[in-house]
Amino acid sequence: MDKMKAVGLTRYLPIEDPKSLVDVVVEKPKATGHDILVKVAAISVNPVDTKVRAPKDKVEEVPKILGWDVAGIIEDAGPECSLFRPGDEVFYAGSIARQGGNSEYHLVDERIVGRKPASLNFAEAAALPLTSITAWEALFTRMSISQDPGANEGKVLLIIGAAGGVGSIATQLAKQAGLTVIGTASRPETVSWVKSMGADYTINHHDPLLPQLQAIGFPNVPYIFCLNALEKHWTGISEAVSPQGVVCAIDDPASPLDLKLLKQKSVTFVWEFMFTRSLYETDDMIEQHLLLNHIADAVDHQKLKTTLAEVLGPISAENVRQAHKLIESNRTIGKVVLEGFV
Amino acid sequence: MDKMKAVGLTRYLPIEDPKSLVDVVVEKPKATGHDILVKVAAISVNPVDTKVRAPKDKVEEVPKILGWDVAGIIEDAGPECSLFRPGDEVFYAGSIARQGGNSEYHLVDERIVGRKPASLNFAEAAALPLTSITAWEALFTRMSISQDPGANEGKVLLIIGAAGGVGSIATQLAKQAGLTVIGTASRPETVSWVKSMGADYTINHHDPLLPQLQAIGFPNVPYIFCLNALEKHWTGISEAVSPQGVVCAIDDPASPLDLKLLKQKSVTFVWEFMFTRSLYETDDMIEQHLLLNHIADAVDHQKLKTTLAEVLGPISAENVRQAHKLIESNRTIGKVVLEGFV
Repeated sequence: MDKMKAVGLTRYLPIEDPKSLVDVVVEKPKATGHDILVKVAAISVNPVDTKVRAPKDKVEEVPKILGWDVAGIIEDAGPECSLFRPGDEVFYAGSIARQGGNSEYHLVDERIVGRKPASLNFAEAAALPLTSITAWEALFTRMSISQDPGANEGKVLLIIGAAGGVGSIATQLAKQAGLTVIGTASRPETVSWVKSMGADYTINHHDPLLPQLQAIGFPNVPYIFCLNALEKHWTGISEAVSPQGVVCAIDDPASPLDLKLLKQKSVTFVWEFMFTRSLYETDDMIEQHLLLNHIADAVDHQKLKTTLAEVLGPISAENVRQAHKLIESNRTIGKVVLEGFV
Repeated sequence: MDKMKAVGLTRYLPIEDPKSLVDVVVEKPKATGHDILVKVAAISVNPVDTKVRAPKDKVEEVPKILGWDVAGIIEDAGPECSLFRPGDEVFYAGSIARQGGNSEYHLVDERIVGRKPASLNFAEAAALPLTSITAWEALFTRMSISQDPGANEGKVLLIIGAAGGVGSIATQLAKQAGLTVIGTASRPETVSWVKSMGADYTINHHDPLLPQLQAIGFPNVPYIFCLNALEKHWTGISEAVSPQGVVCAIDDPASPLDLKLLKQKSVTFVWEFMFTRSLYETDDMIEQHLLLNHIADAVDHQKLKTTLAEVLGPISAENVRQAHKLIESNRTIGKVVLEGFV
């Protein structure tokens, strides 16, 4: 069996512990069925990595490999593949039910893979897939917002936590679709970042939402996309959302929510979990292939820019731990990426 | 000032108390703006009546009049009315923010009023509006189900509590739209009623839902419409709903719900509150006029039947109290109606 380098874990430990993520050598996998085998060039780190790595008693016999943002080159393709061929440059998030991409080679079902934007290098491309899928599905699939700017005149989207990875893409996609975007940010550097992504207004998520919205002329908003601290913002969301409006969230609330607050307005609440399609192998899982190609086209036509904020160095346990620390600080702006193996 | 008879309350008391609903004489109102003045012929009673009447300390100086299902004849119309004229026979639910229709005459905004089905008498018509609006909005507006049977082939709707007023209409509307309908009912007479409304299958809401669904060949269902005891069915709903499925509810849960149970499947949860449009005077409130006319057409073309189960007698405090008792028993089948004043 061929071997490959990877960053993995066998125990679930606090990120300060050097054993929380370790350099390992594991078997190089083989492509079968719909899978492609990708030679990983760059990866990005997301909150899902730190959630999966969260301390618990479980011990893995085979090292568990995290990493759900990959850009790389196809080395081999299973017999049922029809969308790609070896040599193609791709980017994708993969499946939470399988090993992640923090390894030299990685298997992924081609139906959830997109072509890498030609105008981006691998590090810039690796910043995009998970957050792009999340933002795209949230806006256009879950909230049923039209992609046609003509249909969205006067429509307003509030993004709570707009400076993070998903917020950065969601802001750009919503602007492309013709919406007015209000993003929340609380520090000068995040306010500046959110505006650079195209937000029309910023408000501060540490202060009550409704008075700030009223002050900028929006007594209510038909679409709210909440990216963090859902339980903290729940009452504010219920006050700010329009009658018959839509609220989408991606983040586990830390405490129970009072759903009744949304009833009088007949509000829709919808979860966006970008692994649903791959986890359940839904009939429409190829939509993730298609939307990633749309993202690549938009990037190559300068309609969308990478949200890469920092390349931390090569893909090593030490650097991945550093990236996890940044994510756990809840203060990241855009995306952090790691590139290549040493 | 002209006077009229009504059934009202000044104190919020248990329904066993004869003072919980009393015969009163109040001022006959006048139509202005978009309002029509309706001579009430028949009314129906809904769970919203008993919720508004629920015991509390408040005392009303002017008698509060309940009743949000009316069929009658227009006596006068405000200067901004354009949809109806005096003499027209109409049916409607009205607005929760205003006096209800348990009175000889009643004011209602014409934009939430439909023409009475020509093939029904007033009692049969009065059974329909509130539940029809609720069922229609739930299926076609909130859950975004297509009205086109061609678009719904193979789609399945589970209605929890299918024998009640809303369930009886929702079952019929869903069958008209080409869905497969599974209704829950627990007694021989409710099972029989649900089947008579067109349900393809019935299961028992007192037993776990998923094993019963699996037994009839549906390991999951894309649409679930829950009409009561949401907190009791929440776990079962989360197990039974399809990935990316939709859950709609109309009933206040008695305890907090764990929204996270719906996350892994990226499920949509949406409230249907049929008073949202009139309460907030939304831009699309005329949709209730249009959908009631659709209902009237469907009835007149024998595509939909009234859900009237029993006429309790004339509109008197004693009879309205009797209707409230029936609703509070949680065992009603179809709708109870009261007709005329003595």
